[in-house]
Amino acid sequence: MALIVQKFGGSSVADRERIFHVARIVAGTFNEGHRVVVVVSAQGDTTDELLEKAGRISTHPAVRELDMLLATGEQISIALLCMALGELGVRAVSLTGWQAGFRTDRLHTRARIRRLDTERICSELDKNQVVVVAGFQGLDSCEDITTLGRGGSDTSAAALACALGAQRCCIYTDVDGVYTADPRIVPMAHKLEQISFDEMLELAGVGAQVLHGRSVEMARRWGVPLEVLSSIQPGSGTLVTEVCSMEGMQIKSVAVQKNVSVLSVAAAQRSLQPLLAVLSAQAVPVKQVLQCGAGEQQLQAQLLLEDAAAQQAKAALEARFDVLQLQKLEVREDVAFLSLVGSGLGEDAGALPQLLAALSDIGQYPDLITAGEVRISVLIDRSAAAEAVRSVHVAFFENDNENNTV
Amino acid sequence: MALIVQKFGGSSVADRERIFHVARIVAGTFNEGHRVVVVVSAQGDTTDELLEKAGRISTHPAVRELDMLLATGEQISIALLCMALGELGVRAVSLTGWQAGFRTDRLHTRARIRRLDTERICSELDKNQVVVVAGFQGLDSCEDITTLGRGGSDTSAAALACALGAQRCCIYTDVDGVYTADPRIVPMAHKLEQISFDEMLELAGVGAQVLHGRSVEMARRWGVPLEVLSSIQPGSGTLVTEVCSMEGMQIKSVAVQKNVSVLSVAAAQRSLQPLLAVLSAQAVPVKQVLQCGAGEQQLQAQLLLEDAAAQQAKAALEARFDVLQLQKLEVREDVAFLSLVGSGLGEDAGALPQLLAALSDIGQYPDLITAGEVRISVLIDRSAAAEAVRSVHVAFFENDNENNTV
Repeated sequence: MALIVQKFGGSSVADRERIFHVARIVAGTFNEGHRVVVVVSAQGDTTDELLEKAGRISTHPAVRELDMLLATGEQISIALLCMALGELGVRAVSLTGWQAGFRTDRLHTRARIRRLDTERICSELDKNQVVVVAGFQGLDSCEDITTLGRGGSDTSAAALACALGAQRCCIYTDVDGVYTADPRIVPMAHKLEQISFDEMLELAGVGAQVLHGRSVEMARRWGVPLEVLSSIQPGSGTLVTEVCSMEGMQIKSVAVQKNVSVLSVAAAQRSLQPLLAVLSAQAVPVKQVLQCGAGEQQLQAQLLLEDAAAQQAKAALEARFDVLQLQKLEVREDVAFLSLVGSGLGEDAGALPQLLAALSDIGQYPDLITAGEVRISVLIDRSAAAEAVRSVHVAFFENDNENNTV
Repeated sequence: MALIVQKFGGSSVADRERIFHVARIVAGTFNEGHRVVVVVSAQGDTTDELLEKAGRISTHPAVRELDMLLATGEQISIALLCMALGELGVRAVSLTGWQAGFRTDRLHTRARIRRLDTERICSELDKNQVVVVAGFQGLDSCEDITTLGRGGSDTSAAALACALGAQRCCIYTDVDGVYTADPRIVPMAHKLEQISFDEMLELAGVGAQVLHGRSVEMARRWGVPLEVLSSIQPGSGTLVTEVCSMEGMQIKSVAVQKNVSVLSVAAAQRSLQPLLAVLSAQAVPVKQVLQCGAGEQQLQAQLLLEDAAAQQAKAALEARFDVLQLQKLEVREDVAFLSLVGSGLGEDAGALPQLLAALSDIGQYPDLITAGEVRISVLIDRSAAAEAVRSVHVAFFENDNENNTV
């Protein structure tokens, strides 16, 4: 008998039929004799509908009240799923985030989990029933309801799996695993049986939308295997675990992120630090420093940011143009960030030339390249993103070389 | 500076415009320098929509999960109202039932308030802000969310007013007070400035839908004045207080309840007790025993119940027809229960004859009559209900007699 955490996203519980479908998956696991903790998100478009309600009243609602509002979405889902489990003859009890013991910091709409008091969950599990927990939400030190922000429900599930010492944390999504490339772009892409936490983290960071980095980071820290699998098609998915790569290079997946911009800056002083401090103070997330060259009295740097963040960053830096001794401040939006993720990439000098060859085949000659142990990334034209992924996929995963083994 | 509790029902917060309207009322009171605690219900049809969601999944959902589901309705309202208050420049903080300290028994969907821990509310009020509380909900001893059932939000408001020692508990509704009769039936009906707790309790029990009896009972017990007033029209409403009647008879209002049935039973034994025990065990609410005659080996009784309860009662008793030695079991549904509420009715022998005269004018000759100090009720034909109220209203409130003074 194992303890298993199962997480289902909003589209998986969008209506009556899907709720019952999820209930049957949960019931199947429970009836095999396992202890089951289920985490669910808000139904379908509920969160958007609630945001719209708020938007009609205020353009900048208080974040505390926004969390109070948004937290109702998951609360509806957990109650309905428990009712459906009841209809299938499975005893189940729903718990809100605070009932389940999630204690967070006070950063409304993007709270971080500080601790998880598992007493209540454990006592409910001891009653031989499924426990259904509202994802995405917690309670801060003032007993105010908080929400975890992006990837929140995945994070809730991973945190529960870690705190309860679960054997596995199963993340059910609308895809059946992690692929060598996005199957919507590359029809020949195939599913990976396994991937390491590091590889998954890199993939999540560069555009693969299967899992959010926060949940992967948490699972890695506590050593709890994650499984990404389909809530629609039965069968196994992709297992994300501690170690799975043997020696030598293994390319796992190619991903492309299109909603990114490059912010180019030049300044009449040497350090990037004061610029980053300004962005950090305004909570503008910089994805990556692509390039940074500093002369004696001069700085040249290229930063990768998501499109909206790039505009925020530009405005924030422009407001201090003189103080920061800036000379140039430019945003390039017509770019995409293509990444090859795997392991041992640094040992084998062949991956980067092979990648560049695949790109030159379609007329792309990247001017910015970053290469490390587990990821090689290049900046290409946004309009060529899909074609580039297909070309790279052919080169690395559809030839008879050894790299496409999993 | 007084502490005032204001309660707004679901229709008062149904959409953006009405939420802002409520916010302006609250802001007005707050800006006069009062401490304000606001209680709101779920928006418009939200509760019905949630019940429909549940109904699509289960015909008999677990009541614990039903409460988990329904409690989201008020949580949405409190967040939205706080956002609207923020837009008006008024600091406000929302609290769910459990955050506001409502502790109830474990009777899901019809919980009773056991105690109210006001620590959190008081500390929020001390920050010089409006506190907006979710009505209708609480937390039981197992830390499960409960709902209070019918009249729940009024009850929440009254409980807050009592526990906080409020100067007044203002119940905002779609009517602007308590009338001498339902103005939709009797256009000549006029608003009462004052009514006693006892009279209001009787009125609530016999069909006046302005206030629920639970809130009146609670306010009476703690001596907190209630005011019923309109959320649409400005101006004062009707004050429900401890003592307002001077000596002598005062007729306050005439009400009629149409959704009631009379259950007639006859049994070959003397006591009504075993019958009532059966109904009580199945939680079938009997409104009133209208008549009960017991011979040496025989019982004849007429019970007043709401229509649905009457059918439940019939089924429950039928199932034990022999055990209870029943001889007759009949439900009359074509009836209505007309009541005249006031004070000193027992002292003045004139009210009942006057009432019966007004009814005989329209061809109604009640066969069941109950008369007490604060209420006289008669059973009439359901089809004559509206006409009867009008006729009685003319007799008691539209003539030049002294009874229609308030």
